[in-house]
Amino acid sequence: MKTFHYIAGGVTAPQGFLASGLACGLKKSGKPDLALVYSEHVATGAAVFTTNKVKAAPVLISQEHLDHPHTRAVLINSANANACVGPQGRRDAITIATAAAALFGIEPDAFFLGSTGVIGVPLPVEPILSALPTLKTELAPNGGTAAARAIMTTDTYTKEWAVAYNYDGREIRIGGMAKGSGMIQPQMATMLAVVTTDAPVPKPLLQQALSSVVGRTFNRITIDGDTSTNDSVFLLANGAAGGEPVKEGPALEAFTQALEEVCRQLAWMIVKDGEGATKFISVQVTGARSEEEAETAARAVANSPLVKTAFYGEDANWGRILAAVGYSGIDFSPAKTEIRLGDLLVYAGQGLAFDETVAKSILQAKEVTTEINLNQGEAAATIWTCDLSQEYVRINGSYRS
Amino acid sequence: MKTFHYIAGGVTAPQGFLASGLACGLKKSGKPDLALVYSEHVATGAAVFTTNKVKAAPVLISQEHLDHPHTRAVLINSANANACVGPQGRRDAITIATAAAALFGIEPDAFFLGSTGVIGVPLPVEPILSALPTLKTELAPNGGTAAARAIMTTDTYTKEWAVAYNYDGREIRIGGMAKGSGMIQPQMATMLAVVTTDAPVPKPLLQQALSSVVGRTFNRITIDGDTSTNDSVFLLANGAAGGEPVKEGPALEAFTQALEEVCRQLAWMIVKDGEGATKFISVQVTGARSEEEAETAARAVANSPLVKTAFYGEDANWGRILAAVGYSGIDFSPAKTEIRLGDLLVYAGQGLAFDETVAKSILQAKEVTTEINLNQGEAAATIWTCDLSQEYVRINGSYRS
Repeated sequence: MKTFHYIAGGVTAPQGFLASGLACGLKKSGKPDLALVYSEHVATGAAVFTTNKVKAAPVLISQEHLDHPHTRAVLINSANANACVGPQGRRDAITIATAAAALFGIEPDAFFLGSTGVIGVPLPVEPILSALPTLKTELAPNGGTAAARAIMTTDTYTKEWAVAYNYDGREIRIGGMAKGSGMIQPQMATMLAVVTTDAPVPKPLLQQALSSVVGRTFNRITIDGDTSTNDSVFLLANGAAGGEPVKEGPALEAFTQALEEVCRQLAWMIVKDGEGATKFISVQVTGARSEEEAETAARAVANSPLVKTAFYGEDANWGRILAAVGYSGIDFSPAKTEIRLGDLLVYAGQGLAFDETVAKSILQAKEVTTEINLNQGEAAATIWTCDLSQEYVRINGSYRS
Repeated sequence: MKTFHYIAGGVTAPQGFLASGLACGLKKSGKPDLALVYSEHVATGAAVFTTNKVKAAPVLISQEHLDHPHTRAVLINSANANACVGPQGRRDAITIATAAAALFGIEPDAFFLGSTGVIGVPLPVEPILSALPTLKTELAPNGGTAAARAIMTTDTYTKEWAVAYNYDGREIRIGGMAKGSGMIQPQMATMLAVVTTDAPVPKPLLQQALSSVVGRTFNRITIDGDTSTNDSVFLLANGAAGGEPVKEGPALEAFTQALEEVCRQLAWMIVKDGEGATKFISVQVTGARSEEEAETAARAVANSPLVKTAFYGEDANWGRILAAVGYSGIDFSPAKTEIRLGDLLVYAGQGLAFDETVAKSILQAKEVTTEINLNQGEAAATIWTCDLSQEYVRINGSYRS
């Protein structure tokens, strides 16, 4: 049962959060490139980072700051990833966190840092330091969209979502912003999200909720199977909604459900804004013996270039779907398996004679679901992806030419 | 030290092998679609098959026939994969093997079977049965190219290679043919190779040699990371060169080295004929702690759509290469790693200032090598792949439109 409802806004939808975004000169276009999300109250922080062994400096610094009991702010620049630049990257990140902290009279490790943009080019530190005072001055309770705009790289629209739910006599809000889809230019490092809430959530529970939710949302999307060096999801809980701290049990469940909705909506927006994407595709594996098995199979299908080009071509190509499950590494019986495109059963142990007109009308839609039922258990998992178009290749291949 | 030299021809280059190829009517175009490779003498057989859990009927039948001590022939049809059609697939494959065996007065399990083409459509058996007598009549000692032509689907040229070497006073020949690259039409099942030799090789050693060689050749190429339901490599050794059976030690080493050359050349031809391919790319990981580690890293780079589109765009994009190694799952230090494009060092713990003109001239070539030196061991592995072009998407996405 859904206990939450949608509300307007993003990271500043919850009480006690301010945000700002401005152009400090990192983007040649003059577009906004520096964002700050700030909690008026001491907050608890949680975060999930890229599993890539190659981690950008802000990722490594934020991992260290995660040990701090309190978190107050997330500072993000776009246009430069501060990744793969040697020891200078770490020094630059520390310089920026120290300057920002001094401005607010708090400790540097109350800041999470995020960077997104070109890899391998040293971060211009001066423009960021010069812009910090204005960034602070412009902090506003309706600044969420300005911040969401400033973290965009090649995203074509801002990505914000927020929900509210009532629990124990008070309204709790959760809001977030994200950017993604952006390996359009060479060496771009990609996905960032900031989620805020006015719920009072102790740090260990906050991390537990975020880790489980990210596993079912941001980690269940794929554009092209590539994992960037900068992916980070930050969550701040400042308790401004008042009331008792969230405890394990119904209170944590309600919070987690609402958090999952915000993260899922942001994740879906990233897929829909994927490079060259023309379709949003849900790959649903059911009848698996475990959720892990279902996820492994769904991920193989969602990452198959042959499957993705077939969806682009609106081709009812169940053979490629079955073959991808076949090489995913899971154990299953092709004879027991069923494949559906939308509601249309196209394979049940063998290819079926189906109405091509019906298949075409299903595949022509902007959003397509394919279900692969392994018929060997009760578990299921869904991976969300987009199709692979000629535009993707043009975007990623022709940057310099 | 190379002990072999190249000779003309393919599967009929070794003594005592005949082959033929003709059009039996499976291809609407009227092009050849049925091939037979036949040994005049009893031979030993070895084979390696797709690891896909979804296996075509001819793969399952050939796996069973591999237990037979003697092998005489490989019968291959193109245009239809005989895959994913339910129990009918097995019945059809057995019918064909039984009819072919009767024609030659040998046992059905002396035949290996291969099929390549559309998945999910029942195999037309009658045209194949009707053509078998002619296929037998046309067997010829120079029939290798006719057979190589008949196994093509969307390959743009035939793929044959042969070598010879002298050992212990006799000349030993190894020849082969392959087809690949052909998931152009929907639901096509792809890679097939037949290799013949007149060396006398006992069955267990033959399988051992083939398995190790396939691991370093056919299994080290990737077009798009997809593994088909029909991939098979067959090897027949008929001993027509005379002399003592090949034993472990120098005799097996010389044989394996020559076999590896044939398989590698055929594998390279498959990559070069990859769908939409404009470049042949060697991804070489060195300085690894184990060959497995090197292979895992090289495979991640070779399968990354972002890396492949960058090569297509002739973009010196080392950031994408490093990021792919980063998510490959291996443990390594980005600070110790070096990346080269051709001979040009572009990354050594951090991005280097390199001459873009030199990089461009390296990347404009038809064959490009990138070396990733992890600097943590002595092991190395190379994966061969092609770039990802808009043509790949057009071919795979627009079949029905």
